[in-house]
Amino acid sequence: MPDPVLLVLDAEPSPRLGRLTGRVEVRYADAATLAERLPAADVLLVWDFASDAVRDAWPGPGRRPRWVHTASAGVDRLLCPELVASDTVLTNARGVFERPIAEYVAGLVLAMAKDLPGTLELQRERRWHHREGQRVAGSRAVVVGAGPIGREITRLLHGLGVTVALVGRTARRTIHGAEDLDRLAARADWVIAAAPLTDATRGMFDSRFFGLLQPSARFINVGRGASVVQADLVDALNRRWFAGAALDVFEDEPLGADSPLWDVPGLLVSPHLSGDTVGWRDRLGEQFVALYERWSRGEPLPNVVDKQRGYVPSADLDGTGDANG
Amino acid sequence: MPDPVLLVLDAEPSPRLGRLTGRVEVRYADAATLAERLPAADVLLVWDFASDAVRDAWPGPGRRPRWVHTASAGVDRLLCPELVASDTVLTNARGVFERPIAEYVAGLVLAMAKDLPGTLELQRERRWHHREGQRVAGSRAVVVGAGPIGREITRLLHGLGVTVALVGRTARRTIHGAEDLDRLAARADWVIAAAPLTDATRGMFDSRFFGLLQPSARFINVGRGASVVQADLVDALNRRWFAGAALDVFEDEPLGADSPLWDVPGLLVSPHLSGDTVGWRDRLGEQFVALYERWSRGEPLPNVVDKQRGYVPSADLDGTGDANG
Repeated sequence: MPDPVLLVLDAEPSPRLGRLTGRVEVRYADAATLAERLPAADVLLVWDFASDAVRDAWPGPGRRPRWVHTASAGVDRLLCPELVASDTVLTNARGVFERPIAEYVAGLVLAMAKDLPGTLELQRERRWHHREGQRVAGSRAVVVGAGPIGREITRLLHGLGVTVALVGRTARRTIHGAEDLDRLAARADWVIAAAPLTDATRGMFDSRFFGLLQPSARFINVGRGASVVQADLVDALNRRWFAGAALDVFEDEPLGADSPLWDVPGLLVSPHLSGDTVGWRDRLGEQFVALYERWSRGEPLPNVVDKQRGYVPSADLDGTGDANG
Repeated sequence: MPDPVLLVLDAEPSPRLGRLTGRVEVRYADAATLAERLPAADVLLVWDFASDAVRDAWPGPGRRPRWVHTASAGVDRLLCPELVASDTVLTNARGVFERPIAEYVAGLVLAMAKDLPGTLELQRERRWHHREGQRVAGSRAVVVGAGPIGREITRLLHGLGVTVALVGRTARRTIHGAEDLDRLAARADWVIAAAPLTDATRGMFDSRFFGLLQPSARFINVGRGASVVQADLVDALNRRWFAGAALDVFEDEPLGADSPLWDVPGLLVSPHLSGDTVGWRDRLGEQFVALYERWSRGEPLPNVVDKQRGYVPSADLDGTGDANG
């Protein structure tokens, strides 16, 4: 029997695929060649997770891989009706990004509370100007998105003495349902968006939402750019409806030099890096190799995405181990 | 019996002294008038804690207050041989600054690990440039100074998953003695100075010390400026001996616009604000009023400084409650 064909979507190969040498036939594709090479593949590894190529190529003619793994937490760039309707299994990189993103959010919360951006600005001007910071302990946060990333953010902020409300799609145990969000946001010091991009979250942070916030509140998005109506956010910040925001994700990435977002007062812009700590590509490669070992032995895969919902459901999160150890 | 005389060193009175109305005669002094007014005072409240006036005025002729309270954690600006030798009781503001300073340090650690200063710089240039951050969990810190501030820093960093070694003057229980510092610093990712200024700590962070650090290490000083040999730090950073530093305290404060410290590569300069969160002056005022109540009833005071050592010894820290609740 011939080795299974593993098709890798990327110019830059995963650093750990060498471990599968002799057990798999590795082929590569880019956006231009994916449609043509897809029918011959048993497994598709979406290593270039910022690409829309899968959504574009999948609906074409021919056979399709039985398993698709994406080296990302979000799967919104991949999903198309044909992939959703197929019996192809889709897995994601759960386990790699949670802690780095939670650290990044905790760092933003502390840095904004202590006005670190203002301190750096004053340093450039060689000006000694004492200001009073805010205490983080005792402040209130709402984390929107009750998946593993939102949960890790909740855990880390809680350790800093922040009172955190975690909001998911539906209420369960310690998680609030979406119906509680407005009430919780209206009294929060921090609103942190860490939700997957779905029909329910697209554009959910709009003028109506920003109008609910306290003047002292700050908004942080480490989920998906399209959950924010960017024009509404810019407008709300320009009108000082609330105190500040930080975006790590955007509708269109990378952000062009002519984007109006770069110099909105009170807006901190970072280039989609919150989850990316030294060694992250190695960890993503190791994770895929571990999943491949299970798949080749016919064992059930962890991190299986509910394609209808667009994320790994939390029942599975509670029930399965972390593929990344 | 006449009311005790409370002399307040400051132009700006404590917001809470009104609570002592009718029980104390409040007088004010500044640096120019302190020496003349000191003999008539029963209690001295050093509200202007950045002043050297006490050290200058104390050695003069006449009677001295029985109790001096400073609205600061450090007492180095007050101590002179005559005050040390006297039977005047000296108390400090333990309980007010610990948590804010620990939050500030945690914020610096996370912001430096994620290169937030670089992100802000790139945002000004409207440049999308992805970089990899460092993971804070699993990194190693040494906190120098085992008083309540150093302990709170240790607690908060530990909660972020950092392995923290706390170094005091002498080893006891979970605290390392000064003899362990070099060994611990040589393998640390973070060295955090939170020590009082004493003969033992003055100039302790010098070229010899900075030469021990790993190239990836960062140094943070929230203690006292004079514990660092500033020229040695600038030299070490210019030579890239280690990765970066943040100073919140300086030998001479405020730092003048012509200071060479403002633009040293990898050095973050902040204007002695790490402990100062909204409401801090109220809290300092409340703390003094609470101590005054005890003093006026003849009860023992907490937060009593060992004037020989220059700080509140940790046996007392363990044994007494926190004056600030």
